[in-house]
Amino acid sequence: MANDPDKWFHEQIKLLTYNCNQRVWSIIVSLFGDLAGTPGDQISGAALSRITEPMSIKPEAMRVALHRLRNDNWIESQKSGRSSLYTLTDFGLEQSTAARPRIYARSIEHAAEWQLCALAPGAGGPKGKRAKDMRHRGFLAVAPGLFFGPMQAQPLPDSLVFHGQAQNIPQWLKEKIATPEIVKAYGDLEKALDRFAINLLEAPKLPPHQVAALRTIIVHVWRRALLAHAELPDDFFGDDWRAGACRTKVMDVLDRLGRPEPGLL
Amino acid sequence: MANDPDKWFHEQIKLLTYNCNQRVWSIIVSLFGDLAGTPGDQISGAALSRITEPMSIKPEAMRVALHRLRNDNWIESQKSGRSSLYTLTDFGLEQSTAARPRIYARSIEHAAEWQLCALAPGAGGPKGKRAKDMRHRGFLAVAPGLFFGPMQAQPLPDSLVFHGQAQNIPQWLKEKIATPEIVKAYGDLEKALDRFAINLLEAPKLPPHQVAALRTIIVHVWRRALLAHAELPDDFFGDDWRAGACRTKVMDVLDRLGRPEPGLL
Repeated sequence: MANDPDKWFHEQIKLLTYNCNQRVWSIIVSLFGDLAGTPGDQISGAALSRITEPMSIKPEAMRVALHRLRNDNWIESQKSGRSSLYTLTDFGLEQSTAARPRIYARSIEHAAEWQLCALAPGAGGPKGKRAKDMRHRGFLAVAPGLFFGPMQAQPLPDSLVFHGQAQNIPQWLKEKIATPEIVKAYGDLEKALDRFAINLLEAPKLPPHQVAALRTIIVHVWRRALLAHAELPDDFFGDDWRAGACRTKVMDVLDRLGRPEPGLL
Repeated sequence: MANDPDKWFHEQIKLLTYNCNQRVWSIIVSLFGDLAGTPGDQISGAALSRITEPMSIKPEAMRVALHRLRNDNWIESQKSGRSSLYTLTDFGLEQSTAARPRIYARSIEHAAEWQLCALAPGAGGPKGKRAKDMRHRGFLAVAPGLFFGPMQAQPLPDSLVFHGQAQNIPQWLKEKIATPEIVKAYGDLEKALDRFAINLLEAPKLPPHQVAALRTIIVHVWRRALLAHAELPDDFFGDDWRAGACRTKVMDVLDRLGRPEPGLL
């Protein structure tokens, strides 16, 4: 057991915020998804401050982020005496629920069949626009005019559509799917998680808002790493791909931290 | 029954040689494949003349074609008294045997699984050379850098390889696979075959070398049409694709003509 619980807590926050380039509104999205993602869940403005203040998020930055998320119809607030209570809107709940499986699954089951689709070469309209259209339909560009996607995605109607399995993922495609930055992001995350898992063995008893702050940071860096690449079977990535290892370690430390009830924050 | 057997025969030759653009050496290849494709089969120079003369092939053109085919190690000849006897070489027999299934099958069974392969975009070396390499390996170019082929074909090692089934063959690909000229070639062939099938109902008794001449022309135009496109399932072609219908009709008239023994020509 650490001698000074607050010192221990702040050291962990420092360890896990190694990735400083974080936008406040996006952290709030991670926070609500993790701690208040069930219809009816409410978090007070005071609790939001207690959770985010240790991450060095200034009150002014917090107000701007909450304002933006209200404008985007992601969260809504109601006054309760002198304080405000925040909840996800129906839209925010829907987005959060849609993102949850990929973030919280203990392992990802990949489909056996995929689509490989080729756009008409030299067809009318700007090529970039059609490629963007395919990405919006859930496809990943693998080469000029060539797109890989799940079976439920709907390709543009004049595409050559092929259903089956990828047999050989060449190095040039692996490097296109996962840039060195993305590979490094998982490497950094895994290092921090390994360190944190060891530190957790000597964790003091933490108040709920401190548990919430640690969970929020972990879910957030994990979510940002996931959003930087398509969800594909392991053979689409190199041998140094640590997303699967990070998934196991994220779920392990979240289990050990436990999830505080939003009303106790 | 026609009144003048020779007139009937020459009218059929005229009907079936609607496609004038034929090379003599290629006709000889069709002839040997059809009439003397079994080890030991021999055709005399006199028989070759009797068969090709009604197609308006001049003796000089015949000599040049036979010379070329000997140089290419496709056929060989031996003197027998005052005449020459021609046979396919082992190499010629092998090529002929390899081509036979596609030419003479009553129907083509297509594989359930195919390969779709993408070359590395912007990889070293001229793009044309790598595309040519893929064609030599048995692939069909469907879009720039994208190749379709049978499962046994070996793609270039740094390709993205996908195994499965084509689900949607867009119009642009159908037009690339079968140009209007190829579609028209089958249309013309079918018209000639339909006419010839009716005329056969009133056929006189023909000598073996006249049967051989009719067979040679039919096999030859059929073979030229086949060689102009890849052998692919029907859904790779448009609704006006008559290759399957032509196959049935070619086999029907060949059955009705019968095959004369090479020794009787």
